[in-house]
Amino acid sequence: MKAHKISQAPIPMRTVGPIKICGSVLDEKISVPLATYETPLWPSVGRGARISVLTEGIKTTVIDERMSRSILLEADDAYEALQALNSIKARMDEINAVVAKSSRFAKLIDMNSQIVANMIYLRLEFTTGDASGHNMVTNAADKIIPWLLTEYPQLRYSSISGNYCSDKKATAVNGILGRGKYVVCEILISRELCERRLKTTPEKVVDLNIKKNLIGTMIAGGLRSANAHFANMLLAFYLATGQDAANIIEGSQGIVHAEVRGDDLYFSCTLPNLIMGSVGNGKGIDFVEENLAMLGCKEERESGANARRLAAICAATVLCGELSLLAAQTNPGELMEAHLKLER
Amino acid sequence: MKAHKISQAPIPMRTVGPIKICGSVLDEKISVPLATYETPLWPSVGRGARISVLTEGIKTTVIDERMSRSILLEADDAYEALQALNSIKARMDEINAVVAKSSRFAKLIDMNSQIVANMIYLRLEFTTGDASGHNMVTNAADKIIPWLLTEYPQLRYSSISGNYCSDKKATAVNGILGRGKYVVCEILISRELCERRLKTTPEKVVDLNIKKNLIGTMIAGGLRSANAHFANMLLAFYLATGQDAANIIEGSQGIVHAEVRGDDLYFSCTLPNLIMGSVGNGKGIDFVEENLAMLGCKEERESGANARRLAAICAATVLCGELSLLAAQTNPGELMEAHLKLER
Amino acid sequence: MKAHKISQAPIPMRTVGPIKICGSVLDEKISVPLATYETPLWPSVGRGARISVLTEGIKTTVIDERMSRSILLEADDAYEALQALNSIKARMDEINAVVAKSSRFAKLIDMNSQIVANMIYLRLEFTTGDASGHNMVTNAADKIIPWLLTEYPQLRYSSISGNYCSDKKATAVNGILGRGKYVVCEILISRELCERRLKTTPEKVVDLNIKKNLIGTMIAGGLRSANAHFANMLLAFYLATGQDAANIIEGSQGIVHAEVRGDDLYFSCTLPNLIMGSVGNGKGIDFVEENLAMLGCKEERESGANARRLAAICAATVLCGELSLLAAQTNPGELMEAHLKLER
Amino acid sequence: MKAHKISQAPIPMRTVGPIKICGSVLDEKISVPLATYETPLWPSVGRGARISVLTEGIKTTVIDERMSRSILLEADDAYEALQALNSIKARMDEINAVVAKSSRFAKLIDMNSQIVANMIYLRLEFTTGDASGHNMVTNAADKIIPWLLTEYPQLRYSSISGNYCSDKKATAVNGILGRGKYVVCEILISRELCERRLKTTPEKVVDLNIKKNLIGTMIAGGLRSANAHFANMLLAFYLATGQDAANIIEGSQGIVHAEVRGDDLYFSCTLPNLIMGSVGNGKGIDFVEENLAMLGCKEERESGANARRLAAICAATVLCGELSLLAAQTNPGELMEAHLKLER
Repeated sequence: MKAHKISQAPIPMRTVGPIKICGSVLDEKISVPLATYETPLWPSVGRGARISVLTEGIKTTVIDERMSRSILLEADDAYEALQALNSIKARMDEINAVVAKSSRFAKLIDMNSQIVANMIYLRLEFTTGDASGHNMVTNAADKIIPWLLTEYPQLRYSSISGNYCSDKKATAVNGILGRGKYVVCEILISRELCERRLKTTPEKVVDLNIKKNLIGTMIAGGLRSANAHFANMLLAFYLATGQDAANIIEGSQGIVHAEVRGDDLYFSCTLPNLIMGSVGNGKGIDFVEENLAMLGCKEERESGANARRLAAICAATVLCGELSLLAAQTNPGELMEAHLKLER
Repeated sequence: MKAHKISQAPIPMRTVGPIKICGSVLDEKISVPLATYETPLWPSVGRGARISVLTEGIKTTVIDERMSRSILLEADDAYEALQALNSIKARMDEINAVVAKSSRFAKLIDMNSQIVANMIYLRLEFTTGDASGHNMVTNAADKIIPWLLTEYPQLRYSSISGNYCSDKKATAVNGILGRGKYVVCEILISRELCERRLKTTPEKVVDLNIKKNLIGTMIAGGLRSANAHFANMLLAFYLATGQDAANIIEGSQGIVHAEVRGDDLYFSCTLPNLIMGSVGNGKGIDFVEENLAMLGCKEERESGANARRLAAICAATVLCGELSLLAAQTNPGELMEAHLKLER
Repeated sequence: MKAHKISQAPIPMRTVGPIKICGSVLDEKISVPLATYETPLWPSVGRGARISVLTEGIKTTVIDERMSRSILLEADDAYEALQALNSIKARMDEINAVVAKSSRFAKLIDMNSQIVANMIYLRLEFTTGDASGHNMVTNAADKIIPWLLTEYPQLRYSSISGNYCSDKKATAVNGILGRGKYVVCEILISRELCERRLKTTPEKVVDLNIKKNLIGTMIAGGLRSANAHFANMLLAFYLATGQDAANIIEGSQGIVHAEVRGDDLYFSCTLPNLIMGSVGNGKGIDFVEENLAMLGCKEERESGANARRLAAICAATVLCGELSLLAAQTNPGELMEAHLKLER
Repeated sequence: MKAHKISQAPIPMRTVGPIKICGSVLDEKISVPLATYETPLWPSVGRGARISVLTEGIKTTVIDERMSRSILLEADDAYEALQALNSIKARMDEINAVVAKSSRFAKLIDMNSQIVANMIYLRLEFTTGDASGHNMVTNAADKIIPWLLTEYPQLRYSSISGNYCSDKKATAVNGILGRGKYVVCEILISRELCERRLKTTPEKVVDLNIKKNLIGTMIAGGLRSANAHFANMLLAFYLATGQDAANIIEGSQGIVHAEVRGDDLYFSCTLPNLIMGSVGNGKGIDFVEENLAMLGCKEERESGANARRLAAICAATVLCGELSLLAAQTNPGELMEAHLKLER
């Protein structure tokens, strides 16, 4: 390994926007950096951003936040497993004292579990301040396991991660129990704006969303997913802000819901699993720090607030790109035409 | 938009290896570039690579390759949809003639479909030479749609993509019908090597794989996934070689199978959806071209061979990292210890 | 075992209807028998049936039919598996000759496969005449396996069923590749009829279907399912007609799509996996034969036609019950009120 | 409707056993009634039962129990939804007072929720005594909704069931959050017994379980399922004991885990979603009451104990049939031979 030097993979990056965001997390116009090889993404998000500034804004709401790690322990049989598990769940305070030794920020907020045969999959759920928290929760689990094995000698170590976490995999558990920031963004767009800027109508967008994102994904055997391309915006935003982009796997499991309200288009993106941090791994690199600063996510705020702000901006960015692509697909030929134009 | 200049997001990159690969696609020792913020990945893959060179090698087999785009059309009712669909499926040659006008490389090899209510989700499946093929198949679909609407005036356009493709989403369809390269890699590791270099035993790895990757992922509501962290290796390899890394979503839906054979550990990774190209979007950038050349994927070969080679190398890289992490997790404390050491 | 005599479990049964059915399979008014402990199902289906006779009818279309069994074989490695598999797939005619020895009716129409590590999951797909075909395809597989092991001595037996079939399990494969009859039913209901008989509006039904069946099921981690209670009607129809009711597991994985068309409600149920037969196991019992005769499914028809007719009637029955429940749920309090009234 | 009389569908039924069951719920030998058209199921379960009496018994453990109903409400936007939801979750006691008016037995024990766009999917989870509880929770929800709409005038009714419950559908939520009885059964079978009575070895059963139940189901796009035919035993037991058999859909989503322990076969079935009651709908019919009495589930016990006992017996029955089929499939030809013998 020693012979291999560290170099750099310079991914094309561009700032897009501004996007108009409102709601309880932030209320301002802000431009976002997007790093991607798929450069047609820039004008696509840009079109959505331009729509946003002509409206009241994209309202973002953070519903929940947590990071999880599921340890895997074994007992002699299911009954022993159940007895131990019931006891463990009643000792949250003691476990939190153990956690406190591993980090100033990690705080155990819930435990969920599954027993299969004689095995315990114990999902430990933490808040992790402004970090996405992967290492923090692994570190916490690393402290909790020896404590548990001492307190419950009838249990045996099986793994520090039993995949019930569940990290970077297409699963249902993260959406149901929560992992990362849970963000909803909503926008109201007038018919006139739909027609003039998106070359479509509220009805067409609603109809396409049902047939493509909801039904199409479902018959594809989709899992908690109903969107056209959340993944593209997430990848670009994650790379530009020093996030672990492998988490776009759960991040992309989100839902578009649109409806005609009065004469307007109501368009929303629900992203239950945005794993994001403003500090931690991937941060510290110059351009990342600059981008985070540009996004206003390096300010003095209460612990966790910078990360929530980052997640809210990310979700609004996703909405811009999703809206733009769906609108384009309501018109035959428009998508390819746009691609060809951009690549010339 | 004009005010925003294109800059670069320089992601840390390092070459790891060599990995010893054998089998029908390539038979050589080769080092691989990995770009990631999660730099502990380098020594992890490196450890797997060092194992590989002490064995017969990682045998890679490419099972299949194709790229898909599903268009969405509507008829008046399900019966009309069925009649049209049956006719369309019988005209593959004519459709391929239409496709030929859109690209020298795209060739329609199969059609799969779903009818829901009065809607037709028609999944067009192509070979696309050395390109991953996203744009090629969209372009082909863009030519096929007007042809279909002319030939079948009873059909109406609904979308150029009906999400039955299915691009960058957690679905089952890609694994079942195929999308990207379908690659299997296998390695046989002696007990002695397991113990000396991986600090584990064949039995421990087999046991952990069952309890964590198979059962753990399943109870998490996982979809066609049984692995610890395919996503990490895929992201790093994709970024280093100019791939659209949002495709790690389907790419990470793969399966580890391990068993004790005689006194050895048989360890395999099956990756049914590696979407990869040696040409196309993301390529053309200097460091990407250098990396592809280093991997021997810019040679004069029959169309598609460079991309298959790239996919085989990528899959072998995944195996190295997966083996290393699983081995580490068989031992309490090892994972965190390794992380802490690296971050010092 | 000898001491245990065979007795009977008499499930409450009632004939409901008539339902007005139209389309390519049958065009008539027909009453259906439903056996269930959940007797409020009868008036619920009955309400839907009464709606149907006030319209043009429920149009049913059979899209496809097949029954599958996946055998599981092993080779030394993935490459050997691939070579053997490619050869096997090219010998469909020879395999069909082997199948012909096992049954007059079974006919192999397609093969699909997966390779994982060194294993081959070979999904054999057959038409099976008027039988649902479970035993027929198992019997065929039982003949095919020794033939394959003789022709390909490099392969080893692993299982006559590798669960890629996939029988009575919540999977995606049956919907994507087909298993059982694939039936779509559609009805057009005027606003006036919606209001007078269903106490609702087209808009309310469409809205509820989106929020409950599509989005609600999706966030529940649903798999290829978007309906309120297909399972209830299927169970009752299956029990009354001698079907293996454990197949309601895949049968219930179906989709409701509704939209406002002009001033009417378009309401459809897509059931891709109705495993049904008019002959075979469960048939031969007096009341079953009577029910099948009442449904017109014991007539002299070409092979398969009686079973398709049965599936079409079953699907229309599902639509009646689904429509009625959805309409009820659009009104707060109506569901419980109806239950209480019935149970008095 | 009036013209249609209620009749009966007499399903073939036979008592099988005795099965030897041990553990915390019951410790005795007990025979079970099974009603099914698939009569080869009887000897299959019978073989497993005979194995059980030659061992220490099938150890059954009830991990959890609850029944759920998810209501669907709407606010103006996601922020309003979140504010209301947070308040509602803090008022569990008040809601339980409302519930108490609807039933003596229903008790709200937890609430889980999802927010999508401006919609709240609120999953109310209850214990329901000895009833499976479908009607009890619907009735409770019917009381809770008007109370909520009065307390939170900013919320609007959307549906009494938002499909996040999730009833009779292939979803992940029931396994993760719980619905019905969560039962694990385990048995230890000596090598000698495996060989003599099951014509197999511990190793063969373990191997087949991995390749068929775990990997095979997974590549089929299976959801929280790893078994060969839980559904068959469930259907037969449900019909014989007056259960709503449509609940085999979630009931069949269970997991087999087997391993070689010393020289024995450890074989377990985990059934997280057994929806069962000893009172309620379907009960009251003579043969059902007789069967429940024969199973010892009509005794004077604390509320819920009869239903737990029933679930434990049901799960042990499932294990018997699953073990028998898996053992048969380890031997080529055995399955079909057994079928043919039985049908002669």
